[in-house]
Amino acid sequence: MAVRAAVAGASGYAGGELLRLLLAHPEVEIGALTGNSNAGQKLGALQPHLLPLADRVLRETTADVLAGHDVVFLALPHGQSAAVAEQLGPDVLVVDMGADFRLKDAADWERFYGSAHAGTWPYGLPELPGGRARLAGSQRIAVPGCYPTAVSLALFPAYAAGLAEREAVIVAASGTSGAGKAPKANLLGSEVMGSMSPYGVGGVHRHTPEMIQNLSAAAGEPVSVSFTPTLAPMPRGILATCSAKAKDGVSAESVRAAYEKAFADEPFVHLLPEGQWPATASVYGSNAVQVQVAHDEAAGRIIAISAIDNLTKGTAGGAVQSMNIALGLPEELGLSTIGVAP
Amino acid sequence: MAVRAAVAGASGYAGGELLRLLLAHPEVEIGALTGNSNAGQKLGALQPHLLPLADRVLRETTADVLAGHDVVFLALPHGQSAAVAEQLGPDVLVVDMGADFRLKDAADWERFYGSAHAGTWPYGLPELPGGRARLAGSQRIAVPGCYPTAVSLALFPAYAAGLAEREAVIVAASGTSGAGKAPKANLLGSEVMGSMSPYGVGGVHRHTPEMIQNLSAAAGEPVSVSFTPTLAPMPRGILATCSAKAKDGVSAESVRAAYEKAFADEPFVHLLPEGQWPATASVYGSNAVQVQVAHDEAAGRIIAISAIDNLTKGTAGGAVQSMNIALGLPEELGLSTIGVAP
Amino acid sequence: MAVRAAVAGASGYAGGELLRLLLAHPEVEIGALTGNSNAGQKLGALQPHLLPLADRVLRETTADVLAGHDVVFLALPHGQSAAVAEQLGPDVLVVDMGADFRLKDAADWERFYGSAHAGTWPYGLPELPGGRARLAGSQRIAVPGCYPTAVSLALFPAYAAGLAEREAVIVAASGTSGAGKAPKANLLGSEVMGSMSPYGVGGVHRHTPEMIQNLSAAAGEPVSVSFTPTLAPMPRGILATCSAKAKDGVSAESVRAAYEKAFADEPFVHLLPEGQWPATASVYGSNAVQVQVAHDEAAGRIIAISAIDNLTKGTAGGAVQSMNIALGLPEELGLSTIGVAP
Amino acid sequence: MAVRAAVAGASGYAGGELLRLLLAHPEVEIGALTGNSNAGQKLGALQPHLLPLADRVLRETTADVLAGHDVVFLALPHGQSAAVAEQLGPDVLVVDMGADFRLKDAADWERFYGSAHAGTWPYGLPELPGGRARLAGSQRIAVPGCYPTAVSLALFPAYAAGLAEREAVIVAASGTSGAGKAPKANLLGSEVMGSMSPYGVGGVHRHTPEMIQNLSAAAGEPVSVSFTPTLAPMPRGILATCSAKAKDGVSAESVRAAYEKAFADEPFVHLLPEGQWPATASVYGSNAVQVQVAHDEAAGRIIAISAIDNLTKGTAGGAVQSMNIALGLPEELGLSTIGVAP
Repeated sequence: MAVRAAVAGASGYAGGELLRLLLAHPEVEIGALTGNSNAGQKLGALQPHLLPLADRVLRETTADVLAGHDVVFLALPHGQSAAVAEQLGPDVLVVDMGADFRLKDAADWERFYGSAHAGTWPYGLPELPGGRARLAGSQRIAVPGCYPTAVSLALFPAYAAGLAEREAVIVAASGTSGAGKAPKANLLGSEVMGSMSPYGVGGVHRHTPEMIQNLSAAAGEPVSVSFTPTLAPMPRGILATCSAKAKDGVSAESVRAAYEKAFADEPFVHLLPEGQWPATASVYGSNAVQVQVAHDEAAGRIIAISAIDNLTKGTAGGAVQSMNIALGLPEELGLSTIGVAP
Repeated sequence: MAVRAAVAGASGYAGGELLRLLLAHPEVEIGALTGNSNAGQKLGALQPHLLPLADRVLRETTADVLAGHDVVFLALPHGQSAAVAEQLGPDVLVVDMGADFRLKDAADWERFYGSAHAGTWPYGLPELPGGRARLAGSQRIAVPGCYPTAVSLALFPAYAAGLAEREAVIVAASGTSGAGKAPKANLLGSEVMGSMSPYGVGGVHRHTPEMIQNLSAAAGEPVSVSFTPTLAPMPRGILATCSAKAKDGVSAESVRAAYEKAFADEPFVHLLPEGQWPATASVYGSNAVQVQVAHDEAAGRIIAISAIDNLTKGTAGGAVQSMNIALGLPEELGLSTIGVAP
Repeated sequence: MAVRAAVAGASGYAGGELLRLLLAHPEVEIGALTGNSNAGQKLGALQPHLLPLADRVLRETTADVLAGHDVVFLALPHGQSAAVAEQLGPDVLVVDMGADFRLKDAADWERFYGSAHAGTWPYGLPELPGGRARLAGSQRIAVPGCYPTAVSLALFPAYAAGLAEREAVIVAASGTSGAGKAPKANLLGSEVMGSMSPYGVGGVHRHTPEMIQNLSAAAGEPVSVSFTPTLAPMPRGILATCSAKAKDGVSAESVRAAYEKAFADEPFVHLLPEGQWPATASVYGSNAVQVQVAHDEAAGRIIAISAIDNLTKGTAGGAVQSMNIALGLPEELGLSTIGVAP
Repeated sequence: MAVRAAVAGASGYAGGELLRLLLAHPEVEIGALTGNSNAGQKLGALQPHLLPLADRVLRETTADVLAGHDVVFLALPHGQSAAVAEQLGPDVLVVDMGADFRLKDAADWERFYGSAHAGTWPYGLPELPGGRARLAGSQRIAVPGCYPTAVSLALFPAYAAGLAEREAVIVAASGTSGAGKAPKANLLGSEVMGSMSPYGVGGVHRHTPEMIQNLSAAAGEPVSVSFTPTLAPMPRGILATCSAKAKDGVSAESVRAAYEKAFADEPFVHLLPEGQWPATASVYGSNAVQVQVAHDEAAGRIIAISAIDNLTKGTAGGAVQSMNIALGLPEELGLSTIGVAP
């Protein structure tokens, strides 16, 4: 019996990517699609790459429209998920692709988002310690942010194994789809092609507390994070360059061993062979994470680098992976580790 | 029972894209992979996006290595397929992704390729009139060139319906993967990013006689083709802008009707709703063809525009689609009409 | 004594490029800068590449602000130039970078722009037959559109020499800056990177009548134009692929000779050596036009291809070149034929 | 009297950019151009953007050819400059754009370059403390590497003012022209467009000791550097994200004050207004450096970010700036702070 899924926010980038994946999922049947400002329009005009859904008409995001599904995915602006989720009832699986339920600390939420904290849901990053247990059977899932996905997977093994000092320095480059589909002058093709630029510098990016939450959990004590996101001239992809001082006695071998152990049984995280480094092109459109790690002896630092597709593993693929676990389906169902390259 | 497939030339772009598709094909088991200059290397170092095949080792392209498969795909430089095919026996399905067996006219071959003509195999463009009948049960398939795929599908309905004068003017833009993976200075990222440039201008591009062959067959009489290819700053995709003078009495309605009829039952060719035009991003990584057509009354011309992914429908996807037909499998098996966008 | 210049519309792409050029012009002193929606803002926030003007504050576009200059450049949305120009008096040189005064035929204007025709000013394409004489001493200049600049320079020699039939077929690729700086979803980097797409197909693009006007003047009789513009994934540049049937008796030699003669003394139009084709990267940021021409004997067509920078020669550079002529300054003053490449 | 300049290595990216700048330099006359593998070819075929030099023929790189000039620029592969320089005599200004004479420590050179150290020349980064005095009147100049230029200018004020702990963490993104024009598969447009990837991770990049040298000099004691370079999908530009722990008592105000003081009189280094961050597009083709700095209180770090054009300020522009100083010309002569954007 197919899982019937509704998607609220089907006209944006996260919603479009989710539909791309759900169309390939053997157990999912796509139900209602909503998109408030585009309600009444055909999807073919908004997501012209999704040919099988070209004639589907978007509806308004209301509880009535979303009722009667087994799973409801919310790809809404932050702050809007709680109101919708409340009306859906406890027996529907609600997967929030926004930020609303990711943080545990209400003060962090309020400081970074400026509104009241809606709550905390099971966190959809299965590869973190205890991650799968949190998701199994859950009726609510908070899909992680794209940057925290890339960064947490790159660095948690170093912290879980006690190899790194508790001050992480992260510089990540993201494709422009991470900034969404709402038209803004600084996101025009004319502005971004040929240009690299930072934004949200100095600890103000909203994904920072989420990274701190994940890495601190892995370390068992608070980890500080210096995070600088940059906008790269490409539509998709995140390359996260993460480093921390190595603790005394750490060697290249002990670092490698910790990462091999952490990812040995992971279906989506691929520790590359020594000497090969990740590239975002290799994970284009795939749910795979490519990771490599090095020990810079002269500088005394561990450098871990990951590449993901921000829309796939970083958003919609992570959502489907967590849905599979929550529903008791095979975790890899409908997901691929094969990138579209070159 | 799975179809066992070998791929000769697995380290290039065409070979890599074919493997991406075969990995998702439910009836295919991937057998030997060869690549002469890279024999002995792991595929993971050459095609890092194909994680499930990362540990496969490339072998040399010999008859021994390729023996014992149901299908052998040849992604070799032109001129090399005939020698390999001869050794494979008549009961193996050989799918040539190179140019060797596309042209019917030996003089055309010799003029454009400068070597002896190896022969003509059934042509792998099922959407052309009679295309599927030619492929059903065949043991040899000549996969069309990427430009001829885009151009022939855009223009054949106008010629088959007798709407257009027999002088076609075509300007097409291709992504750089069409030029292959061999390093050349003019294909460096530094050169192609931010730049549009033509090449092979004035009727000298090798795909010209193939277009003439297809369009003339549709028209039932010789069609001349003025073809200008251009290199666009993107990895994949072809946008083909094709036009011809409209015959007397042709109207926007008669043009639309001809195209609707031609593509009504096609699983991969999608005539867009009026007013919507193709974009290569919409077919990124998909086997779909997006087509739109207009009648410019003032200039007296029919303008038909198609978008394909040069590596998918233009090469490897077309190869799999034709293989499916030849083997009696469902034509769409393992192929998608969903693009990876944005 | 310096020429004092005001720029109305200094926050857009045309205005920004004009300022870049005026800053390097030895005879120009930059006066008032206006930009209605951005009035009151510093230019450094809007045009961060123009460091020497970073602290200049934009003012409103009024006659008072624009008064007291020798030259006023108008980089305004079409339809707004006439009202401003009327208030400036006949002794000020007014250079309109918009469309308002380009067309001679009022009916053409009304059909393509849907408003009343404001008039016709001397046309700022000095390289056309009679072009410089029209501009010398003029107090009003209509700067050509970017596409008509590229297309007219590529094709007029064939028409002026009587070599081509009077039906031109043109496919041009433009960088995204041609679409302006106003945020639109289809112009987002996420949408345009990796994608080629057509727009304004079938004779509806507003630059079509301007091309017809120029080519018909060169031919001495009406020329029809089939024009298809496409959007290319690059910030700047136009590559125009133009062709027409060759008249009987035309040869590769006669075509070459006509182009060599047409451009022999042109400072900005460079006919490339035989065998070398234009690339937009080569004219990036320069006022040069690179042209090449071929005779396709089999198809019976002349193919002329030009590359320009749409913002430089296609807009702001063309404006400065025409200003130089109108003011009696050396035509090349402040302009360069050197591109920024790679 | 003009300065007569020869350029050895005129066919590469550094040589091409140098010629672009020298063509605009009012005191320089371009003399001999050499390029060993391309000797005998016209420059127009190799550097099609340099129209005024299109008919110049490249010669071989010999002492005879380079003799008789006031300045000789060497844009050669590392290890080749010493032999050429020796033959040029002490009264010629030799500007080495390669790495050979940048490092003071012979052991560093040997460890990172694997050959014998050729010596140390005055270092061409005038903005460093004492930088101009070292260059004035010098007959030999070692032009800095592109990464060390971006990184040293971003961080030296923090070290010179004693604000930062002596462990710098740097992640920089470079356009592909930094990797040169020699064709390599990993630099093909198909590979780099749409992709971010790191290389030389873990302290092995050859520019690391040069950064250490510069920052340690500013700090007055050894500074360690963790440097991760990444390849970005753009032709030009470096964005360097640099950080270090703030010393106790450091505040946002003291950081800002140190940077304002360091760059107050610099013609090419522009500290952006608070809240505005650098973008590589803003310095495209210009000799400007855009810098911004922040104090992340939560993470306890100073984050300084710079944007340069790797070919201009990072190579050829830096070379011309230093030449101007050495010859007693105005430092800004022939150089611009205006970028080509968008």
